[in-house]
Amino acid sequence: MPDMPSTRVGLWLIGAKGGVATTLLAGLAGLRAGTVPPVGLVTAREPFARLGLVDFSDIVVGGHDIRIGSLAAEARRMWTESRAITPELLDAAGPLLAEVEERVRPGTIVAAGDRIASLADLPGAVLVETPRQAMARARRDIEEFAATERLRHVVVVNVASTEPPPPPMPREFAEIEPLLDDATRCPLPTSSLYFLAAVEAGASYVNFTPSAGSTPEALQRVALDRGIAHAGCDGKTGETLLKSVLAPMFAARNLEVMSWVGHNIFGNMDGKVLDDPRNKSAKVRSKDHLLAGILGYPPQTHVSIEYIRSLGDWKTAWDHVHFRGFLGTPMTLQFTWQGCDSILAAPLVLDLFRLVERAHRAGEVGVLEWLACFFKSPLGVSDQDFGRQVALLHDWAAARAT
Amino acid sequence: MPDMPSTRVGLWLIGAKGGVATTLLAGLAGLRAGTVPPVGLVTAREPFARLGLVDFSDIVVGGHDIRIGSLAAEARRMWTESRAITPELLDAAGPLLAEVEERVRPGTIVAAGDRIASLADLPGAVLVETPRQAMARARRDIEEFAATERLRHVVVVNVASTEPPPPPMPREFAEIEPLLDDATRCPLPTSSLYFLAAVEAGASYVNFTPSAGSTPEALQRVALDRGIAHAGCDGKTGETLLKSVLAPMFAARNLEVMSWVGHNIFGNMDGKVLDDPRNKSAKVRSKDHLLAGILGYPPQTHVSIEYIRSLGDWKTAWDHVHFRGFLGTPMTLQFTWQGCDSILAAPLVLDLFRLVERAHRAGEVGVLEWLACFFKSPLGVSDQDFGRQVALLHDWAAARAT
Amino acid sequence: MPDMPSTRVGLWLIGAKGGVATTLLAGLAGLRAGTVPPVGLVTAREPFARLGLVDFSDIVVGGHDIRIGSLAAEARRMWTESRAITPELLDAAGPLLAEVEERVRPGTIVAAGDRIASLADLPGAVLVETPRQAMARARRDIEEFAATERLRHVVVVNVASTEPPPPPMPREFAEIEPLLDDATRCPLPTSSLYFLAAVEAGASYVNFTPSAGSTPEALQRVALDRGIAHAGCDGKTGETLLKSVLAPMFAARNLEVMSWVGHNIFGNMDGKVLDDPRNKSAKVRSKDHLLAGILGYPPQTHVSIEYIRSLGDWKTAWDHVHFRGFLGTPMTLQFTWQGCDSILAAPLVLDLFRLVERAHRAGEVGVLEWLACFFKSPLGVSDQDFGRQVALLHDWAAARAT
Amino acid sequence: MPDMPSTRVGLWLIGAKGGVATTLLAGLAGLRAGTVPPVGLVTAREPFARLGLVDFSDIVVGGHDIRIGSLAAEARRMWTESRAITPELLDAAGPLLAEVEERVRPGTIVAAGDRIASLADLPGAVLVETPRQAMARARRDIEEFAATERLRHVVVVNVASTEPPPPPMPREFAEIEPLLDDATRCPLPTSSLYFLAAVEAGASYVNFTPSAGSTPEALQRVALDRGIAHAGCDGKTGETLLKSVLAPMFAARNLEVMSWVGHNIFGNMDGKVLDDPRNKSAKVRSKDHLLAGILGYPPQTHVSIEYIRSLGDWKTAWDHVHFRGFLGTPMTLQFTWQGCDSILAAPLVLDLFRLVERAHRAGEVGVLEWLACFFKSPLGVSDQDFGRQVALLHDWAAARAT
Repeated sequence: MPDMPSTRVGLWLIGAKGGVATTLLAGLAGLRAGTVPPVGLVTAREPFARLGLVDFSDIVVGGHDIRIGSLAAEARRMWTESRAITPELLDAAGPLLAEVEERVRPGTIVAAGDRIASLADLPGAVLVETPRQAMARARRDIEEFAATERLRHVVVVNVASTEPPPPPMPREFAEIEPLLDDATRCPLPTSSLYFLAAVEAGASYVNFTPSAGSTPEALQRVALDRGIAHAGCDGKTGETLLKSVLAPMFAARNLEVMSWVGHNIFGNMDGKVLDDPRNKSAKVRSKDHLLAGILGYPPQTHVSIEYIRSLGDWKTAWDHVHFRGFLGTPMTLQFTWQGCDSILAAPLVLDLFRLVERAHRAGEVGVLEWLACFFKSPLGVSDQDFGRQVALLHDWAAARAT
Repeated sequence: MPDMPSTRVGLWLIGAKGGVATTLLAGLAGLRAGTVPPVGLVTAREPFARLGLVDFSDIVVGGHDIRIGSLAAEARRMWTESRAITPELLDAAGPLLAEVEERVRPGTIVAAGDRIASLADLPGAVLVETPRQAMARARRDIEEFAATERLRHVVVVNVASTEPPPPPMPREFAEIEPLLDDATRCPLPTSSLYFLAAVEAGASYVNFTPSAGSTPEALQRVALDRGIAHAGCDGKTGETLLKSVLAPMFAARNLEVMSWVGHNIFGNMDGKVLDDPRNKSAKVRSKDHLLAGILGYPPQTHVSIEYIRSLGDWKTAWDHVHFRGFLGTPMTLQFTWQGCDSILAAPLVLDLFRLVERAHRAGEVGVLEWLACFFKSPLGVSDQDFGRQVALLHDWAAARAT
Repeated sequence: MPDMPSTRVGLWLIGAKGGVATTLLAGLAGLRAGTVPPVGLVTAREPFARLGLVDFSDIVVGGHDIRIGSLAAEARRMWTESRAITPELLDAAGPLLAEVEERVRPGTIVAAGDRIASLADLPGAVLVETPRQAMARARRDIEEFAATERLRHVVVVNVASTEPPPPPMPREFAEIEPLLDDATRCPLPTSSLYFLAAVEAGASYVNFTPSAGSTPEALQRVALDRGIAHAGCDGKTGETLLKSVLAPMFAARNLEVMSWVGHNIFGNMDGKVLDDPRNKSAKVRSKDHLLAGILGYPPQTHVSIEYIRSLGDWKTAWDHVHFRGFLGTPMTLQFTWQGCDSILAAPLVLDLFRLVERAHRAGEVGVLEWLACFFKSPLGVSDQDFGRQVALLHDWAAARAT
Repeated sequence: MPDMPSTRVGLWLIGAKGGVATTLLAGLAGLRAGTVPPVGLVTAREPFARLGLVDFSDIVVGGHDIRIGSLAAEARRMWTESRAITPELLDAAGPLLAEVEERVRPGTIVAAGDRIASLADLPGAVLVETPRQAMARARRDIEEFAATERLRHVVVVNVASTEPPPPPMPREFAEIEPLLDDATRCPLPTSSLYFLAAVEAGASYVNFTPSAGSTPEALQRVALDRGIAHAGCDGKTGETLLKSVLAPMFAARNLEVMSWVGHNIFGNMDGKVLDDPRNKSAKVRSKDHLLAGILGYPPQTHVSIEYIRSLGDWKTAWDHVHFRGFLGTPMTLQFTWQGCDSILAAPLVLDLFRLVERAHRAGEVGVLEWLACFFKSPLGVSDQDFGRQVALLHDWAAARAT
């Protein structure tokens, strides 16, 4: 799939009917119409405006999903269940939602785990695919998207629900490749099959979830060989963002964090999936590991995520930090975060799409480490200090700005 | 007052009987005895350990205060009123407290405002001084301290209660100097008289309070002329520290802060002084101004400070941040900070003392801007992003480390 | 104004274009149409359903206001500024809002204080009235309302903005009456003039605000003489409701409340009025006095109310309760209340209207003390324990139920 | 064990070396010496002072425990690990702690579950008892205590760690009795064996824990037959107390609670035991069930309890109540409770001891339902409204007061 001489760039969403995707589309419609200011979009600020990023009017969206429901109906739930997007904006996004819906193709659940499979609504033929067949089908969908829409390039972004963690993975892709014909032995989860499909299709890739996706080292080497730029994983939107901002403060002041407890409650589709302990374990690990890295020692930590239906997309987190100061005196910091998950995530997906596309245009390949500030578990970067991660991004932008 | 060939360095505290001073002394005793780990001390971490900073055993403490009460009795209140320092540590600090008490000299209230004056317990002769006489007396006290204790150098640190803001100040010291003989016309508040006394005595200076101290430009030029290193102002220990950590996050994510409300309650001597609206206004200004600087626009802000007796030294702050994300969706971050004011401040005073002394030894003069991360209103630095301020400090340390 | 043989009962709102009034009307439209469940309405629960209370379809609404803006436009702000009432419900309430708007008459600001007067938009003739003229005009408006609409009875409810506290009042109405011709000497605030107008018109009366209204003893005697039933004052909807629920717990457990701090922030019209310290003082007093009554001793208290524009109708309160338990151990309870003021108040106004009308029908006159649970400063009741106040109401209902 | 003509009354604690027991003893020493005011003691308030309750100087304490450690050492942990009792008070309680230690007898773990058994430190002979032998031994200990100390009466109070819930229990004691010789088939947990021992010894009984104790109906009938007064279960000290206070408010205002989430963190011995999911399930059930009873419908609920070492005895609870008001508008109440568990519980144990002893003197037998306000799961009372439970207690006291 060679890059075409076009200004149009494709955004292919895995999970195209989820809350993040529909929020992104409602926002994209508003940004194009000028009715939505670019609040929440990192790339709307300096120095990114001078990078020649893709125009909102040049973004063409398509994607995979495992559910049948209409995009417009899914988007409407952001109003009826969460009061998070106004009816006016949803009405105005109607034409774009209808247009994108035409481009959504059936996803795969070949290795997605029971909880996600139980939510699927897929044609029978899709359900009996081998991993290799699922991957090939996904690749074809992406390639057809690029050809039909005459796109200069495609960026695939995973915004699907969180999978359970995969089994240990062989270090060499050569050991994995033969297993693709056998769903019961193949260690690759669905998200990694999509990643390989993107790589094969020549598309860039972003993993916005804690699912494995592009994380396995064997797969990263494949991407590097094919000259693919990618980034991940797990968008940092709320409680973990705050951890990566507050923990450096305790470190800088040499205050000893004895325990850090974080309780998260919310009620969207993502929450339903995380209600399964296997899926939850992947998420909790991604939210929990950064403290020891920043502090230099492991405090006692506890992270819970609970599905509370009435909250809809509103993720409420209560964090309790118990720390010791001078003379051993114990003190406490508590915070409550009341954020709307999809509202926080959607503009970051647009940012990542625009930045990865720009990097691709500049010939960058492999892991884009300067995108670390967007992720809970940044590939290739061990520094979890948000401030320093932001500095990496700004340094990159300064070097690319014209 | 030339530097002497000695390893001993003097720490001269303005407000030597207050909570910060007594906590510092209790801690210093524990640090020397090895019974207190250096938690809360920035300079106990790398890279500061390789800077050749003053040993705790080489610090000699003296100071000014306007009250008669014994240091040990004041220190004991950190236990009886606040449960913040254990009786064991206070008992162990007894000898050091007694030793330092011998070196405390009567302060001055010549221009401190009514509220502070009402707390004073000073001999009659002191009460009728002119500003010039008060300054000269303070200078003599510092010089005698240095001579008697055979100190290599002295650093004066202001940890006294907050004064009301001073009147507008002439830009040239030559206009101020003649007024020093007339208490009613002299615009310099007490804290600035102490600063001049330190400058005249050849001592370095740190302003850990929001009082004017070394802030007036006219005085800064005097310090520069005399080759004095100094830093300030207003130690950043709690709520404002969090603001300088959290506001950059909102900026980096392009989230629009609509309002930021901060309510502070506490019950120590400082709180009693701030109960006077004139004194409070200086503090509120110092706590409030940094948001617009970091965000690039002024959100609606409100800061309150209330004296609640039962809390003693425990400063409890509730902050409510109302911000707008993508698609105009309003969201909320709240935090509650339950910190012990003196416990947080005292180790930072020790840090500043050690760092300023090191800078003096290296020949640095004027405002030490790389100390910005310690202050709410850093002299000479407009960047209020805590992470970047910490980077300044680390860069300096890296350059000085051996 | 004799009661007519009709099923229709009039609700006359002082402040008919404010947030509480418009919310009430949006809700009344929904209740009639069956699109809004009676959540938040006390009288929708047992045992009140068996009291023969006025049907929603028999309530006719009119009132006074000092502003020109349309009711529909005011109601719309509950959506655009506060996201508190959905556009669907507002659209459906359109006809009712239009109908009521026809019945709104110009109010008076003859003694309302500068802050409220600055918000008024009244015809010139109204501005030069004496207190007696204003009162007579208000009375005529109420009487015409009753006659035109052929109402069985009218209940006047004050939901206007909070006035400053009035000057000390003579104990006998005979001393006040002659002053009604002189705006500068008459001690009655606007709210009390409306109360007298209601009394003269034979209407029942409810004071849902902290303004003086029916509180002066001299006026209560007038109402008793005329056989008027009334209740007040200051609807208990949020932070104070919680105080009256939580303080009895501390008392019952013999836990010693050392301090109780409450900070309230919100951004509606009421908030704008309370931004004036004179108006605020009335509100703070009403919110603050109940603790000593419940506990039996006065803890240190602090109540703040601040106008934070971005919050709209969302009243956010943070309360910090510092209490001492066994062995002198200090402990803390904090709560954060995020309630929508008008949404909480409006159904209580409907409840009070229905209950007062029922009491009037049963021949009750004077202060209806069994309504204490609705008010911050209940007339005639010193017990501030919410549970016991609720028991009073239930006992009354049980006695009246059929 | 007939009541003796003595003024001395015995308090026999199951779990005599735990935090509640040692706090109670430290407090009892202080109350006797007059150095501790009776804060936190319900029976120190009116109308209880006129009931002729046992004097503090007439209380003789003994008990069972499964650990060897000294009482003084256990008590000291309330200072060293939790800063909850001052060293001064602990020092002053030394003689009483030593005296009581002489009266502590080895407990039993015959049916206590693995987690509790793992904490035990018992002589070998005790470990191989049958349930009947354990019960008989406990009974002898209580009887010897009464005889040796010449006590008028004994009240046994269970303050031991929470057991796992027992298996379903036969309805008739005749079916249970024969199984007492077979530890593997006997359904009675340890707490119920202690209850039977108390009953056999003629002692009154209080179950301050969620363990089964006196709850099984078959055992309650035995107690009634023997004329034993008892009360339980699970002392209501913190988060659940607040639920039973706040939920009635939502009910009274007809606000619809959609979800109520409670997260509890703490780090004492109780917390360690609750870290076992089997033990935790008993506690969570006791904390969770009351909401539906008060509200009349079941909101979605979630209760977590986590062991966070650094918190020691400080139980911190965060509760998030999501409720719907008029017009369907969702609102939120959050609270944070920072209470010291043993400090809150110990005076209530003293209260219960004094009240149960008074009831015994008055000839009351069976469940003392008027003590409901002290318990999370009150035996014989379904009304969970704290205010009404308090009214029950006051009514009883008024009837008994002289």
